[in-house]
Amino acid sequence: MPKIIELDVLDIRFPTSRELDGSDAMNPDPDYSAAYVVLRTDEGPEGHGLAFTIGRGNDVQAAAIRALAPHLVGKDVPEDAKALAELYFELIGDSQIRWLGPEKGVAHMAIGAVVNAAWDLAARRAGLPVWRFLARMTPEEVVSLVDFRYLSDALTPDEALGILRAAEHGKAERADTVAREGYPAYTTSPGWLGYSDEKLATLARQAVADGFDMIKLKVGGSLDDDVRRMKLAREVVGDDVRVAVDANQRWDVGTAVRWMRELAPYDPYWIEEPTSPDDVLAHRAIADALAPIRVATGEHVQNRVVFKQLLQAGAIDVLQLDACRVAGVNENIAILLLARKFDIPVCPHAGGVGLCELVRHLSFFDYVAVSGEVGDRVIEWVDHLHEHFLDPAVVERGRYLAPARPGFSAQLKDETLADYVYPGGPVWTVLEERG
Amino acid sequence: MPKIIELDVLDIRFPTSRELDGSDAMNPDPDYSAAYVVLRTDEGPEGHGLAFTIGRGNDVQAAAIRALAPHLVGKDVPEDAKALAELYFELIGDSQIRWLGPEKGVAHMAIGAVVNAAWDLAARRAGLPVWRFLARMTPEEVVSLVDFRYLSDALTPDEALGILRAAEHGKAERADTVAREGYPAYTTSPGWLGYSDEKLATLARQAVADGFDMIKLKVGGSLDDDVRRMKLAREVVGDDVRVAVDANQRWDVGTAVRWMRELAPYDPYWIEEPTSPDDVLAHRAIADALAPIRVATGEHVQNRVVFKQLLQAGAIDVLQLDACRVAGVNENIAILLLARKFDIPVCPHAGGVGLCELVRHLSFFDYVAVSGEVGDRVIEWVDHLHEHFLDPAVVERGRYLAPARPGFSAQLKDETLADYVYPGGPVWTVLEERG
Repeated sequence: MPKIIELDVLDIRFPTSRELDGSDAMNPDPDYSAAYVVLRTDEGPEGHGLAFTIGRGNDVQAAAIRALAPHLVGKDVPEDAKALAELYFELIGDSQIRWLGPEKGVAHMAIGAVVNAAWDLAARRAGLPVWRFLARMTPEEVVSLVDFRYLSDALTPDEALGILRAAEHGKAERADTVAREGYPAYTTSPGWLGYSDEKLATLARQAVADGFDMIKLKVGGSLDDDVRRMKLAREVVGDDVRVAVDANQRWDVGTAVRWMRELAPYDPYWIEEPTSPDDVLAHRAIADALAPIRVATGEHVQNRVVFKQLLQAGAIDVLQLDACRVAGVNENIAILLLARKFDIPVCPHAGGVGLCELVRHLSFFDYVAVSGEVGDRVIEWVDHLHEHFLDPAVVERGRYLAPARPGFSAQLKDETLADYVYPGGPVWTVLEERG
Repeated sequence: MPKIIELDVLDIRFPTSRELDGSDAMNPDPDYSAAYVVLRTDEGPEGHGLAFTIGRGNDVQAAAIRALAPHLVGKDVPEDAKALAELYFELIGDSQIRWLGPEKGVAHMAIGAVVNAAWDLAARRAGLPVWRFLARMTPEEVVSLVDFRYLSDALTPDEALGILRAAEHGKAERADTVAREGYPAYTTSPGWLGYSDEKLATLARQAVADGFDMIKLKVGGSLDDDVRRMKLAREVVGDDVRVAVDANQRWDVGTAVRWMRELAPYDPYWIEEPTSPDDVLAHRAIADALAPIRVATGEHVQNRVVFKQLLQAGAIDVLQLDACRVAGVNENIAILLLARKFDIPVCPHAGGVGLCELVRHLSFFDYVAVSGEVGDRVIEWVDHLHEHFLDPAVVERGRYLAPARPGFSAQLKDETLADYVYPGGPVWTVLEERG
């Protein structure tokens, strides 16, 4: 049996703050970064994974991943659901590491990076992209991947099994369909807060020409600016294109309601992250006040327990899971099952570093084996940094193409790893010299 | 103006897992640890703070504290509410660090350690213990320390000001009273899960003889064992001593309710951490099902936003803040104010490394300047590791004595720092040699 012989971690950072790509009301100057992990083996493929951060602290995130090495190095390469379940339960069950969360923040994202790297490794060995590797598993195997602790008041293992069994019918056909037709995307590229009105209008127009029927704007900096930008976007894209807005947690309940009422005349499709991602009750209050405007959140929702409550409370209309915020594929399967149980569409968060690459596997799997439908589901698309990936996400005519290469698509090119490693890589030493 | 010239961080670990002190249903083998920070200055006293962890990952916690150095080194030593507010808002407002939470887990505890060290420094310069330094501030100054973002649907700055102004009356008298009479404590020392029945009975008997009128047992491992231990404890201490139980997050809603109904005949005073600290709705369901048994939580509650919801939902009867889990004194003041608003008693979590030393300052301040009453409030007491502190917590006849030395009492002795530093300290190299 091949073994994992090394867990290697790199601090990779891209100097994105220079261009204001990714700027929003809470994050004015992100340097998109990845705490990047490679599971090296004594035979066959490696496994690659990452945690996405926005600059400072990426070294701390890397240290947290490194601290998990004893759970992996010297162990058999995981090949199947059983091994991938065991690894996940071992990692979230390390009580000393758990104390650092529990199941949230730096320590939890570190588990996510490692779990996803293990899935990458297992899928590569199987010669399949992760979404097909997952879709091939039986309902019983999929259920075995999930930790139901803290979920049973909303979803039992039996109910999960029922959901998955119901989706067995038509699975092969749906896999063919999604491989052929892709999966709907929306684009955030026009809407960064640091962009001029002219750039916003140009990019919004371009998005529609490129085939997108939904775009997203960042809001929450200045109400006057937001009204002007929303009006402009609506004029440019017309009435048939959905325009979502995203406040990146800037508001409390009262501000969210007041602010969104000013934007309501321009028909915002959803308000994303109106307030703290920890605040189930505030999301519920905002959703009640703003209906029929949808409330969305998830990129910063720390774990399945908070998602469960958002669903139980009727606090969200759209669930935006993130491939790297929670404990990897295993926990995201729990979240997909919860969303299905409560009949709330999953529209994943993406962008960042590698999030588009990874998360499409989860949406493809959701369609094939969990929800069984696309409906109004849509994956976020941000068109930057893809050139650094070996198996980049590709969007054509507003749809994500199906990933076809074996694995989880997280692998960065060797030259990217060499150039952008922080602080010693040439990209950073040159910036340092320029001052 | 004196400056902070260095932020020094040490990885300090105590090999407590050898004795099963601190063992509970979720944490069978903790090595009580501190990521320990010293703010060195060019003139006058240093500031000391810490984050408490239970072993592995303490190096990650230390790295997270180190990442905050640019916010402190080279800055003026904070002397007053204004400077301590500015530092707190700067730290929680660092958007790149915030991404790692937001406001939770490793990155947030790091802010807590540094904020508390800054309070230690400021109070030492003022020549006062932190509780007196705080109690001397005006209501306006105290309000300025708090971040009301995400709180305003439950507590506005004006309401907070009203609470503090109402408590101005009798402040000096209460400070005298608590300095003279101390503050009620309860003891967890008899109840660790790894202890034999005989040891439990001996320690429970001793606790009553020592003047405690409340003890706590760890539960959640085995129902049969818990029933036997609870029965034994009740027999030993009699009907007039409160016996609380603590499940350390082991259960889901159904299990918590079933399990506690078996213990109910022995009159448990509260059930602590019945389930995930993230699960507001589950705590509410458990509280509804188990009343009049009180539900308590807080040592793992990540921030003020989750405490706010626990209070809004009527999910807890006892609020157990922790000195080091959230972002230090500033965020704990927000939590004290929220608890007052909702009229829920604060009974702090303590134990660990230094938590008794630190948290007593917060309860003393609460009594003097916020809640204005003791009522059934009580601070946890665990009698271990105090010998390592320069200004150790002291409990006599079941009451915490008032800390009198200037500062926040977090400072470890120099010989402790030398002996227990991990992995190079002699305590650890000797254990390593023994294998």
